[in-house]
Parts: sequence; C-alpha cells; structure tokens
Amino acid sequence: MGEASARLSEPRARFLSSGVTSRQEGSDVHEKRIEIRWSDMDAFGHVNNATYLTFLEEVRDEWVERTLGEADLSDFVLARVAIDYRRELRQADDLVVARCGLAEVGRSSVHTREELRTVDGELAASATSVLVARDPATGRARGLTDGERSALLAEPLAPPDGDASGAR
Amino acid sequence: MGEASARLSEPRARFLSSGVTSRQEGSDVHEKRIEIRWSDMDAFGHVNNATYLTFLEEVRDEWVERTLGEADLSDFVLARVAIDYRRELRQADDLVVARCGLAEVGRSSVHTREELRTVDGELAASATSVLVARDPATGRARGLTDGERSALLAEPLAPPDGDASGAR
Amino acid sequence: MGEASARLSEPRARFLSSGVTSRQEGSDVHEKRIEIRWSDMDAFGHVNNATYLTFLEEVRDEWVERTLGEADLSDFVLARVAIDYRRELRQADDLVVARCGLAEVGRSSVHTREELRTVDGELAASATSVLVARDPATGRARGLTDGERSALLAEPLAPPDGDASGAR
Amino acid sequence: MGEASARLSEPRARFLSSGVTSRQEGSDVHEKRIEIRWSDMDAFGHVNNATYLTFLEEVRDEWVERTLGEADLSDFVLARVAIDYRRELRQADDLVVARCGLAEVGRSSVHTREELRTVDGELAASATSVLVARDPATGRARGLTDGERSALLAEPLAPPDGDASGAR
Repeated sequence: MGEASARLSEPRARFLSSGVTSRQEGSDVHEKRIEIRWSDMDAFGHVNNATYLTFLEEVRDEWVERTLGEADLSDFVLARVAIDYRRELRQADDLVVARCGLAEVGRSSVHTREELRTVDGELAASATSVLVARDPATGRARGLTDGERSALLAEPLAPPDGDASGAR
Repeated sequence: MGEASARLSEPRARFLSSGVTSRQEGSDVHEKRIEIRWSDMDAFGHVNNATYLTFLEEVRDEWVERTLGEADLSDFVLARVAIDYRRELRQADDLVVARCGLAEVGRSSVHTREELRTVDGELAASATSVLVARDPATGRARGLTDGERSALLAEPLAPPDGDASGAR
Repeated sequence: MGEASARLSEPRARFLSSGVTSRQEGSDVHEKRIEIRWSDMDAFGHVNNATYLTFLEEVRDEWVERTLGEADLSDFVLARVAIDYRRELRQADDLVVARCGLAEVGRSSVHTREELRTVDGELAASATSVLVARDPATGRARGLTDGERSALLAEPLAPPDGDASGAR
Repeated sequence: MGEASARLSEPRARFLSSGVTSRQEGSDVHEKRIEIRWSDMDAFGHVNNATYLTFLEEVRDEWVERTLGEADLSDFVLARVAIDYRRELRQADDLVVARCGLAEVGRSSVHTREELRTVDGELAASATSVLVARDPATGRARGLTDGERSALLAEPLAPPDGDASGAR
C-alpha cells in the first residue's frame, strides 16, 4: 500500500487556536491562509514546487481533523497527490489561500480536491490527493470504519473543477 | 499555462562535477543518488511527502540538462506532477536512488517518468511530470524547437511502470 | 566580508498586507506571529533547529524593512547569528511569536536582538544577529549611509536580555 | 536548560553506509560532503542562511555518533549555535564540505567547532555549537557519564580558527 508522511494524529490545538483558519460560510471546502516565507522561494524567486505540497498538507490535515476528528486519524497515510501548477507564487504574494474538500470516498480511501489561490483569487495550483486508512497492527490498508464513512458522507463534495468556480 | 519553479538555467557544474551522479549503463533513465537529511524527516520519522518532490526535482533537472543541454533550458516550467507514494523513507534508509526518463513528447511539453527507490531497490514512489516550454517574451507556452524535439526523440522511453521493472 | 542570504530587497507587500504582523504598542521591538508547519518538525516531533533561523529571518527582514525602508536594503547581508535554544517547539504550539529589535549600530553593521516565544510567552530561543552593509559594485562592506544611521539611531534599543523581560 | 532538535538516537546506518563520508586522515575533524539541492537556494540564488544550520547538523550528528556511539546519545540536545557566514553558496558550488570537531568538554556539555567549505577549500561559514546531556526522566541537564567523558577526551581538539588553517 502506498503511503507517506501524512500527519493525522496531532492535537487539534493548532487548528482550533489559529485565528487565520476558518470554514467558509456556505462552503464545502476548508480554507486556510498560509503566509509565504522567504525560505519557500527558490533561486528563480518563486515558491518552490515542492513547497506547494507543504501548503496542501497544511490545509488537508486541518480538513481531515475537522471532518474525521482525532480519534481514528493516526493511521491514515497519503497515497497519492496529483498537482497542476497554474501560477508562480512570489514573496510579494504574501499569503496563499489553501482549500481542501471531499472529492470521493472509497472502500479504504478518501479522495480530496485541493487548490491554492492568491489573496486576489488567482489559481496558483489545483490538486487531488488520496488518503488511505491503515491498520496500525499490520501496516496494511483497512476499510473505513462506519463512523469514518458517515462523517465523510455528511461532507458535501468539493466542486470538480477548482478553476471554474467563479463564485470563489 | 501552468507553471512552477523548475530550474533549468543553472550551470551544469553540479551535474558534471558530482561523482554520485551517473547514467546507468544500457539504461534509458538518468539516475541520481540523493542523501537523506535529518531535516527531511517529519514528526512521524518519515521523509515528508513534499520532500519527495524535492528528490524528484533533483533528478529531473539533471535529466533535462543531460538531454536538452543548457541552451534552451531557462524557460521550461513544471506544469504537473502526479506522485504515488509507495513506501515510507526513514533516516536509516540513508540514500534515495532517484530516476528520471522520458515518457512522451508533446507539441510544447515533455512528459517524464520518475521514481524513487531505496538502495535495496524497493520502490518508494513513482511519478509522472510535465514540463512545458515557455516563450520568455510572452510568458506563454511555445512549441518545442526542432533541436529540442530531435534531442528528445533520440532519448529512449522510460518503461511505463517503474514498479514492474524487475531488472532494475 | 561574511555574508549570507538576507533578503532585503523584496517589495514591502508582505509586511504591509499581512494582518498578523504588528508593532507592539510602546515597544521597541518588531513582532511577527508565525504559524508552525507540519514540515517544520523533525523526527523527534520538534521544530528543527535550522527552522528557528527561518523564523528569525522572517521577523528580522520585516524589522529591517520597517526601520530602513526599501531604498538601501538590497545590499545588506547576514554576517552572523548566535542563537540560544531554550525550549522545544511542537506542532501543538501552533504559533511562534518572533521579535526583533536593535542592539547596536556599527560603522558598517547593524546588530539585532531577536527572540522566539510561544503564544503563552515562554522563551523558545534568543539570538543576536549581525547585518553588514555591502557595496553592490565591489561586493565589500561599506559604511552605513547617513540616512541609514539616523533611521537606526531613532530606533530604541531592544532590552539586553530577552529572557529577563518579565513584562513581555 | 536550552534545547532543540538534535538528532542523536538514529541508527548509524546512514553514517556507515554512505560512501561520501569519511574521516580525514591525520585529522581531528569529521568531514562530510553534502550535495546542495536546488530547494536550498533562496530568491537571491544563494543557499538560505537557515540551510547552513542543516549542513552543520548533518556533520555534527555524524561526529557525535562516531565519537560517542549510539548508546547514550538519545538525550543530547542542541543548546546553542553561533555561526559566522563568510561566503555565499550557490547551486554551481554543487557540494559543501562540512567539518566538525571537538572544541571543549564541560560538566554536562560538549562544545564543537564546525565549518563549511566549498570543494575548492573556500570557507563558507564557521560555527561553534553546544550540545547538552539531558536526563530523559527529568528532561534536565545531567553530567556527562564517565564513558562519555573519556570518549570525548580521547578526541583531539579542533583547531581554534577554522579560517586560519591553510593546510586544510
């Protein structure tokens, strides 16, 4: 089973205490504003492509915590990310608005739809990711629990094309 | 046109002088051994998922330099990466063996196939990436030049499934 | 002349637009709240020691911009950092409160006093840094201009011991 | 007691298996060649100042493992780093030669002397660091054990000024 370093067992302190995070009103996605750091830049003066995944991770982890709570989280692993880069990000952009929402629920997997935008709403990247539930005893994929599944099914689906969503 | 921080205009010094980089004999892929750093790890003791893209960038940039030379490189941008995480990497893995090869040549794009393996050959991740040629004057995609196209077409295709390639 | 990657020529957009940055009332230091990222952590679950310097850089750059403006900034380089680590930072700490103020003005150098605290005020690190003015034509140290010197001398000195400042 | 994320409990696999690491003949310092990554660069095209500490960490951790073994290592913490930046590092420098040696042994602390050089021997940075032994039960500083002390005292001192050592 594919896997990587998804963080899903941390205290919710960060999520709850951070004033810059908020659920959008009437929205199906979780939003987090992330400040760009000077060290995120590479020698072209753009945020490095790998750092885009750091931004996605920040919002995805919060979305998972919000949606699934902490109880069963420690054994989800990141199995896949597909990211389309649409716009360079620079120091002068200051902040990235990162969004994550549900795309699909599988037997043992959760598919999310994610995007990064500038404060002005320009799309910087769109992505889809796959998280897989893992049995801590065996290290292998396990089916989602009923509780996980119902929590996920209560979540509205994120729109299929982040770019087309003019309302956002 | 999608884009991100591909580095394609740096001097080849790094590539040429670094003893740890070599083209595999009789192989269609470029290989680079990358040492894992302690700071690559996250709090689960695994190399962070974003750092996998850093590893892919290291080998991809070398492959591009080897294949296309330096002349026309400064305006390729990274448009997409799709990565499947297969195995956690830890400090004890010490080194990652990163490979990059050609998957497909488009009108203005170059598709690569990439993978990360442990020294023992275990697949840690497989990926496909898309680079797009960009006109520096307009910042928009441009067709590949004849020189670029012939250099690319001289390159054998990377095997379609990194995982299935037992010989490697 | 010693030097490193101080960023002092970027547009002030980040500083000015970011709501999370503010000058403390009645204070001689510049303060910036920085959100901890999951990827800042290392395998012990603590923010990596090198990342502390990233946090210091974020607040120092803003302090320099605030104090010296943009005009003459592009050729200051970071010559030295001495940091005392006092407390581990974890994901659950959520935010770091970074502060930077003036310690001393030399002929061609600016000495700053910096600290990192938790939201609850616990000292995580204290540091002193030295920036040196550089002549872009020669790449060598140059004396501070009269304008730089008077802007700096208008700045109150940061208290000598960040730790002792109970009021903060 | 000051502290930060020193890694001292990892398996020695990395140190032992990595061909690029070697103890210098007739030398009192441990040397490690570290490849510069594209993502180490910042928007000025220089290795970011915080990344210098990552390079120092890489060589320091190996030196500690070599000198003290693994047995007692898990509870040393990094208490202080003072770094003088001497030269910018660029992608074209390809590799950094990092060195670490003993400077001083305290009651509960180990002081090291460290430096980063280009392959051509130019000094990029010199540093001193302080590691402190910590009692895992209390989290407080503890005296060095007899075994630690004798292992350290068998180690020759690193020369006091990295820059002056023309022979290196």
